Amino acid sequence: MNKPSLYTILSPELLHLYNIKNSVVVIIDVFRATSTIATALYNGAEKIIPVDSVEKCIAIGKQTPNSITAGERDGKIIEGLQFGNSPAEYPKNIIAGKTLVLTTTNGTKLLHMALNNGADEIITGSFPNLNAVCHFLSKQNKQVFLGCSAWKNRVNLEDTLFAGAIIHQIKKYFTIHCDSSLMAEQMYTHHKKDMYAFARLTTHWHRLSQYGLEKDLEYCVTENVADVLPLYKNGSLIAANN
Amino acid sequence: MNKPSLYTILSPELLHLYNIKNSVVVIIDVFRATSTIATALYNGAEKIIPVDSVEKCIAIGKQTPNSITAGERDGKIIEGLQFGNSPAEYPKNIIAGKTLVLTTTNGTKLLHMALNNGADEIITGSFPNLNAVCHFLSKQNKQVFLGCSAWKNRVNLEDTLFAGAIIHQIKKYFTIHCDSSLMAEQMYTHHKKDMYAFARLTTHWHRLSQYGLEKDLEYCVTENVADVLPLYKNGSLIAANN
Repeated sequence: MNKPSLYTILSPELLHLYNIKNSVVVIIDVFRATSTIATALYNGAEKIIPVDSVEKCIAIGKQTPNSITAGERDGKIIEGLQFGNSPAEYPKNIIAGKTLVLTTTNGTKLLHMALNNGADEIITGSFPNLNAVCHFLSKQNKQVFLGCSAWKNRVNLEDTLFAGAIIHQIKKYFTIHCDSSLMAEQMYTHHKKDMYAFARLTTHWHRLSQYGLEKDLEYCVTENVADVLPLYKNGSLIAANN
Repeated sequence: MNKPSLYTILSPELLHLYNIKNSVVVIIDVFRATSTIATALYNGAEKIIPVDSVEKCIAIGKQTPNSITAGERDGKIIEGLQFGNSPAEYPKNIIAGKTLVLTTTNGTKLLHMALNNGADEIITGSFPNLNAVCHFLSKQNKQVFLGCSAWKNRVNLEDTLFAGAIIHQIKKYFTIHCDSSLMAEQMYTHHKKDMYAFARLTTHWHRLSQYGLEKDLEYCVTENVADVLPLYKNGSLIAANN
């Protein structure tokens, strides 16, 4: 039996080079949107509504009972919203049973692109939910695209490393003719044992650690501490029965 | 003194994310355009005119005394042209004193993009002329962009590895806040000792080795065997006095 293909797309700007119709797309935004999404769902959030602007975030928050609005710019909560973009802000006692209306830039943009280009299933991935993502992908028998959200469309290391972490676990289920995937897996394999130190070299770490977010960033490169599968359905991310 | 910046651009599709005005841009197309360019100039070609279509190649060839037209598709010389895209086709006795009119797809496209976006200097780089490129870049005291030609805009491993080879040599002269550069250098550092074996894993090697081009590909990942600096001036690449 032919194995389905797997590709890694290192920036949203490269998505159009691939035909993602009828495929599974994994949205990856390690620092910090998809890490926060996994954490909030793991801690009992009913659902997460990803939106691409502050205005929509506020409007949807108002319409949605039992909701929290969240978003950051430059490491601070955006005016008019209630919470930030840190996974640490969403323990069970805060988020269980609630709807999180989350505004992010890079990740949400890519999610909507995947949707508009006909992806069959969209899930989100991050180190905290690595195993759930791998388990799901290995059972689908469908073409997979690992979509890195990047930073303002510039390729980033942390999303690439996470794509590599997925490939490292599940490559036997796929046919992989994709140099980006090869590089991603190599980067992960070489650095999985010094991930905390290595992630410190990323441009994003530099940017965010200036805001005192070091603990957050360490959490975001820790595997399987919020091992749930966020599945996009009808405008929301929900924890799937994996 | 502030050091100038260095960035790696992994695909022509990402070039527009950077302001390359007044910078030095290195065009990288390891398999095989920029390797062939270095080799032809090293072996005494007077100049190389890179063109983006077969029609232009033929027309310019006709107007240019003492010229050779060259280009390949799918590993074969294009009908109407005289030579292919292999560095092995350009020994001294064939190419010395001649003008090579070379049609390539990925590399020429990127070169013209760099030109149209205001690059100050454009050079081409490949493993065969690694040292010449590094020597030049280290003396410029200007911002540098390493432009990978990629394959149909998809990121490829061989161009990334060569970007890494440059960075490995000259990083002390530059400020590098660029995850693509970090990855490129890591890939090169991890694999410089098994480059022949590692390059075999690239999708492009698979593609070209089907045409019996293994020897060519090995040559294209061999450092400093045609150590000349191809500099773009007035529509042609010439060997600069480095």
